[in-house]
Amino acid sequence: MLAIDEILSRYDPSTGALDGKPAVRRHLADLRGCFADVRAYESALERGNPLVYSVAAVEPARGEGDLGYGIGLIVPGKVGREYHMTKGHLHAWRPAAEFYFGLSGEGVMLLEDEATGASRMVRLRPHEAVYVPGHTAHRTMNVGAVPLTYLGVYPARAGHDYGAIAERNFRGLVVESGGQPTLVDRASFIP
Amino acid sequence: MLAIDEILSRYDPSTGALDGKPAVRRHLADLRGCFADVRAYESALERGNPLVYSVAAVEPARGEGDLGYGIGLIVPGKVGREYHMTKGHLHAWRPAAEFYFGLSGEGVMLLEDEATGASRMVRLRPHEAVYVPGHTAHRTMNVGAVPLTYLGVYPARAGHDYGAIAERNFRGLVVESGGQPTLVDRASFIP
Repeated sequence: MLAIDEILSRYDPSTGALDGKPAVRRHLADLRGCFADVRAYESALERGNPLVYSVAAVEPARGEGDLGYGIGLIVPGKVGREYHMTKGHLHAWRPAAEFYFGLSGEGVMLLEDEATGASRMVRLRPHEAVYVPGHTAHRTMNVGAVPLTYLGVYPARAGHDYGAIAERNFRGLVVESGGQPTLVDRASFIP
Repeated sequence: MLAIDEILSRYDPSTGALDGKPAVRRHLADLRGCFADVRAYESALERGNPLVYSVAAVEPARGEGDLGYGIGLIVPGKVGREYHMTKGHLHAWRPAAEFYFGLSGEGVMLLEDEATGASRMVRLRPHEAVYVPGHTAHRTMNVGAVPLTYLGVYPARAGHDYGAIAERNFRGLVVESGGQPTLVDRASFIP
C-alpha cells in the first residue's frame, strides 16, 4: 500500500493549485441554468466569459475505505444579486458525506436534503469545517471580496451526480440582501 | 439529515481546541513503551510528566459513508534522540484510510504496512496532505521547535486499534541524526 503515488501532496491556498494536477475550470458560460436572474446572467455574458471557479483533486486509491480530497477556488463576483457559485452536486454514491474546510476568503454553502428538500445555508471560513451529510446536494458560493479557497474530503467512491441538480436546480437561492448573504426560496424570487 | 448537530465546527490551529469538544490529552507517563531509549525515557519522567499531545474530534454521524475529523497538537520536545510522538494506531476497520493535513509546525509521519512491515517516513507540513492508506499503522511526530498541529479526516467507522501497536510497536523509529529526522530500524537502534 505504501508504494502508491500521492502519499504526499501539496496544495496552494492562494492559487487553488494541487501539485501538478489538472484543474477543472468553470467559466461563466458553463454555469447556464445556475443563476435565477437570467437577464443579469445573459447581460454578464455579453461583457465576457470570466473564470468563476476551479477544482483539482487527489484520489490516491479507489477501494472501500479510501478517501479523496480536492481544493476549490471561487473567484469573487456576482451576477445580479447572486454570488459566484459552483454548479453543485449530489454524490453518485448517495450515502457519501463530505467535509469542507475553509482556507481563505469568505464563503457559504447551500445544503439541500434530497429526500425532504429542506435547505440550509452554512458559512465556510478559515479554521471552520462544514459537514455535508450523505444524500445532501451541496453548492459553494464566494460571498466575499477575495478568492475563496477550501478543501473537500470525501470517500473515494463518492463520485459526482450533476444531472439531478442540472435538471431541477436547488430549491433555495442565496442572494445579497442588505449586504448579507440571505437564503430565499427560488420559486418566489423576483430579481 | 440537515438537523444533525455539528454541521459547522471551528478549530483553533494554535491551541488544538475544537469547539467545546473534550480533548484526549497524553502525558509522558502515558507513552510508556513508545520510546526505544528506555533510559532516556525514565530519566525524563523523573524530571516531570509534561503534556506530549492532545487530540479532539468531531464525528457528526456514524453511518456508512459518514466521516469524522480530528485536530491533533504535539508539543515540541525530545526524549533522547526521539521526537515527541503519538502512540500510533491502526484503524479497527482496517480498510479505512485517513488524510492528514498539516496546519502549523513541522512534523513527520511514520507509516507501516501491517501485512509486509514496510515502513515509510513522510513529512507533514502546512499546505501538505499525507495519505494513510488502509491497513497502515501510523504515528505522528513533532520534529520542529514549535507546536505541530494537523487535521486528520477518516471514515466514521474507522475506529482505533491501539493494542496491536502497544504489543509489538513500530518496526521503524524516527531519530534525530545530524539535525534531521531519520528513519532507522528499531531492532538495531543503539541509543
